[in-house]
Amino acid sequence: MTIPSTMKALLLRNDGYAAASSGTVLEAMEPYVEAGTIGVPQPEGSQVLIKVALDSINPSDVMFVKGMYGQPRAIGRPAGFEGVGEVVATGPDATGLAGKRIAFATGLTNWGSWAEYAVAEAAACIPVLDSVRDEDAAAMIVNPLTALAMFGIVKDEGEKAFILTAGASQLCKLIIGVAKDEGYRPIAIVRRDDQIPLLEGVGAAHVLNAEAPDFQQKLAEVVKAEKPRIFLDAVTGPLAGTIFSAMGKRARWIVYGRLDGTVTPIPEPGQMIFMHKKIEGFWLTEWMRNVGRERRGEAAIEVQKRFSDGRWATDVTAVVPLEEAVSRVAEELAKPNGKVFIRP
Amino acid sequence: MTIPSTMKALLLRNDGYAAASSGTVLEAMEPYVEAGTIGVPQPEGSQVLIKVALDSINPSDVMFVKGMYGQPRAIGRPAGFEGVGEVVATGPDATGLAGKRIAFATGLTNWGSWAEYAVAEAAACIPVLDSVRDEDAAAMIVNPLTALAMFGIVKDEGEKAFILTAGASQLCKLIIGVAKDEGYRPIAIVRRDDQIPLLEGVGAAHVLNAEAPDFQQKLAEVVKAEKPRIFLDAVTGPLAGTIFSAMGKRARWIVYGRLDGTVTPIPEPGQMIFMHKKIEGFWLTEWMRNVGRERRGEAAIEVQKRFSDGRWATDVTAVVPLEEAVSRVAEELAKPNGKVFIRP
Repeated sequence: MTIPSTMKALLLRNDGYAAASSGTVLEAMEPYVEAGTIGVPQPEGSQVLIKVALDSINPSDVMFVKGMYGQPRAIGRPAGFEGVGEVVATGPDATGLAGKRIAFATGLTNWGSWAEYAVAEAAACIPVLDSVRDEDAAAMIVNPLTALAMFGIVKDEGEKAFILTAGASQLCKLIIGVAKDEGYRPIAIVRRDDQIPLLEGVGAAHVLNAEAPDFQQKLAEVVKAEKPRIFLDAVTGPLAGTIFSAMGKRARWIVYGRLDGTVTPIPEPGQMIFMHKKIEGFWLTEWMRNVGRERRGEAAIEVQKRFSDGRWATDVTAVVPLEEAVSRVAEELAKPNGKVFIRP
Repeated sequence: MTIPSTMKALLLRNDGYAAASSGTVLEAMEPYVEAGTIGVPQPEGSQVLIKVALDSINPSDVMFVKGMYGQPRAIGRPAGFEGVGEVVATGPDATGLAGKRIAFATGLTNWGSWAEYAVAEAAACIPVLDSVRDEDAAAMIVNPLTALAMFGIVKDEGEKAFILTAGASQLCKLIIGVAKDEGYRPIAIVRRDDQIPLLEGVGAAHVLNAEAPDFQQKLAEVVKAEKPRIFLDAVTGPLAGTIFSAMGKRARWIVYGRLDGTVTPIPEPGQMIFMHKKIEGFWLTEWMRNVGRERRGEAAIEVQKRFSDGRWATDVTAVVPLEEAVSRVAEELAKPNGKVFIRP
């Protein structure tokens, strides 16, 4: 296959981080990303070069292009954290992936997926079965694999009950479904009453509305009855602090997102001392690098089984051609309940 | 030996926790503790009964009697977290300690040491050599053993440099001395310039005054040069948050005290995700229960060696008879640079 020297891509317009938080909604692409042409990268070492078939857009992409994600932006580089495509060239330490159709994530390369070609580390690539659609493969890692990886933390800890914030997110719905299948008891925290029946339907053992006047009392009752040890938190801020301080001995607050940009307090640091509580983080990129080939492989197989047999399916709001992405993506993202894709 | 049925003790005047923080200074004993008579307790299970020779007073005792420590007070019970004495009776699972002279801590029994007799769990007792003075043995656990236990965390992590807040405390001076002996590089945070030469003399590689206008810049320079991974924190509050957020990848904030009662923020929770930082706690009582007999024994031997050969010595401000403690202790504690003891 002939690989061109340049390619079309959606390029970052800013460097580093935003000076101030501007919320989690993408009001428009124009301030952050522009369509342009850039050289096709060369895969080195354990990297591969992928001819991209389809890219997904996740909340973390929105946070990143706005400069509010924990990774600095590099002006002029492609944005985009995941996609699906075919490996068309490899570095000397990744030849085993040559020619394969793979789902990939780009967090380790500082070079994004929203382009005709992308580079990814072999450890962040998953060969996909023919039975998995492009729409599922392009959105296979950031949400589904994270769901299985984080549920793995719950399983390792051993307690059946665990707490999730942003309970109505796509990611939490995946976690809740898997957990219910295996007999676990997810406690989902939401901000609207209409999300309660939805999440009970997905498999949550309890759904609490953090905006309800009796939230703290209900939380205390549920914690007392269910004894959750793990708290998977996408929100941070005062709500997360309140939940963590209501939990019992040896609670682990695992931060994987920070949708609330306000100050995050530790309400009772004495609990770290006398109740052996801990605060940690989870980042899939780090997990994929460190968890080991076997466990990563098991999760990759489980994800594909679920997509192949129909237990999981990605709801598609729109597939936007790369040339139209700057003008159309913000309005497509504003529609509820599905995923927006970019096709290079 | 005949054990009486009642004894003199310093009894807590309040239950539970204080409604509001009132600072770390003991303004007077009277609001919190009174001299009285109480039944001598019976040792059960793995407990021992000790005829107390000498009790020490630590900052944690002051915080506890004021209701500001992470353990609830029990009205009418003796206060006091450590002492030295002779085992005069044992529960059925602690007969091996019968008749021994021991240093002991009371955190596991909810029954304090400031009395003629005390109960302690066998796991919180250390038989002491004849070469160790009562003044050293009575103050052997809460500070010296904690120092060795926390320095053990530094050694396990492997990095030579580490950070301590409340750098001029007795505990930190012990940690700094031991660390220097073993080639480690303590970075002490203080609040007054006159503490800088003192701690450099004890063995600190760097001493930073948190009140200095260029503190944040100096902290950044030292962190960059020394790459500390462990942060031993007795303070919490905004200062501790600032230090933690200035530290590099995989930093561990280990809270063991909370001298600053104001809100403790996590300035950049995204660092938990993307830099693998963690926040944990350390409590000696938990450490003694969980660390295992071998490691506890090694630390107990090392502490006594240091007291026996003169590398360590407890500075004595006053030894106050139990009957005079309520009227005299506050004024003795206000004197600088030494320890105050209670003799039953």
